[in-house]
Amino acid sequence: MDNKIIEFITQYISLTDEEVEIIKGQNLVKSYKKGEALLVEGEYAKDCYFVLKGCIRSYYIIDGEERTTDFYTENQTINPVSYLTKSKSDYFLSCVEDCVVSIGNEERNKELITKIPKLESMLLQLGNSLLVENHTSLDDFKNLSPEMRYYKLLENKPDLFQRVPLQYIASYLGVTPVSLSRIRKRIQNK
Amino acid sequence: MDNKIIEFITQYISLTDEEVEIIKGQNLVKSYKKGEALLVEGEYAKDCYFVLKGCIRSYYIIDGEERTTDFYTENQTINPVSYLTKSKSDYFLSCVEDCVVSIGNEERNKELITKIPKLESMLLQLGNSLLVENHTSLDDFKNLSPEMRYYKLLENKPDLFQRVPLQYIASYLGVTPVSLSRIRKRIQNK
Repeated sequence: MDNKIIEFITQYISLTDEEVEIIKGQNLVKSYKKGEALLVEGEYAKDCYFVLKGCIRSYYIIDGEERTTDFYTENQTINPVSYLTKSKSDYFLSCVEDCVVSIGNEERNKELITKIPKLESMLLQLGNSLLVENHTSLDDFKNLSPEMRYYKLLENKPDLFQRVPLQYIASYLGVTPVSLSRIRKRIQNK
Repeated sequence: MDNKIIEFITQYISLTDEEVEIIKGQNLVKSYKKGEALLVEGEYAKDCYFVLKGCIRSYYIIDGEERTTDFYTENQTINPVSYLTKSKSDYFLSCVEDCVVSIGNEERNKELITKIPKLESMLLQLGNSLLVENHTSLDDFKNLSPEMRYYKLLENKPDLFQRVPLQYIASYLGVTPVSLSRIRKRIQNK
């Protein structure tokens, strides 16, 4: 599992053997069962995550109804807004499958950056990628029809449809489960 | 105008007098007239921006129709997706008012970071703020009704309503200009 993180980091920067050992030594890996929560509305998030295995869903509860806003799978990082802003979380993070994650926090990250300063440049590049992802998701949600959003999700994350209950996907796409079924039928009939 | 940038940076990190001079020396300020474009669909963005004065709008043209996705005003940074990904831009950036902006590009940013390495930590913090903003905007757009989105914009950026034609704001909120008028009337009558 450690190698996954090393692979991920070396997409951005090169690491010496010594640096690899430092990262492995500091790496805190934790397992969660399907249905377990990593973060609950109203809590302060103290950790950020890197998904080694499994699928984590973020959702709000609005007027008693769950609204799914994101899915995080292998090799994705999760920086909860609450973690970044040091404020109470407005949303939940919950495991859709059994999960294995690597856990970071401010203290540990600072320590790592002191030992390996070039990690800062990696975090900067990673931040930019996340920014692009978020920006594109927002623009897509504004500009695309639900059917186009469905196609795009199918293209970018085809595995989600096998891994996640369809009602979560419907909520994520901003449609009712009935509308999602209709979209899927329409496409099958084409 | 130079001081605005220094003020902005020193929100994140402290600067020595010498560092302030380096930044001022490298600062490239440019003026644009209302209606001028900073970026056109299909172009490669070579620059990123810091808005010193004025208002810049981002929009797509979809099926011949403009879809406004964002407004950038004083003290906001603009990192076009095209700039971050080195790919063709899917959207336009255009001045809603006469604007003055500070222009950055990869080369100049690298040079500055070489001279003032702690700028990297500032960029990291700034990146996190932008991430939070983007994340919150996306979740709000998914979770809030058009009326709630209107309230939130009125709360966060009240000046926009005096600065920007209402049809752009309607488009940004994801409603027709007629719906926006109705929302505004409903609120006035309350």
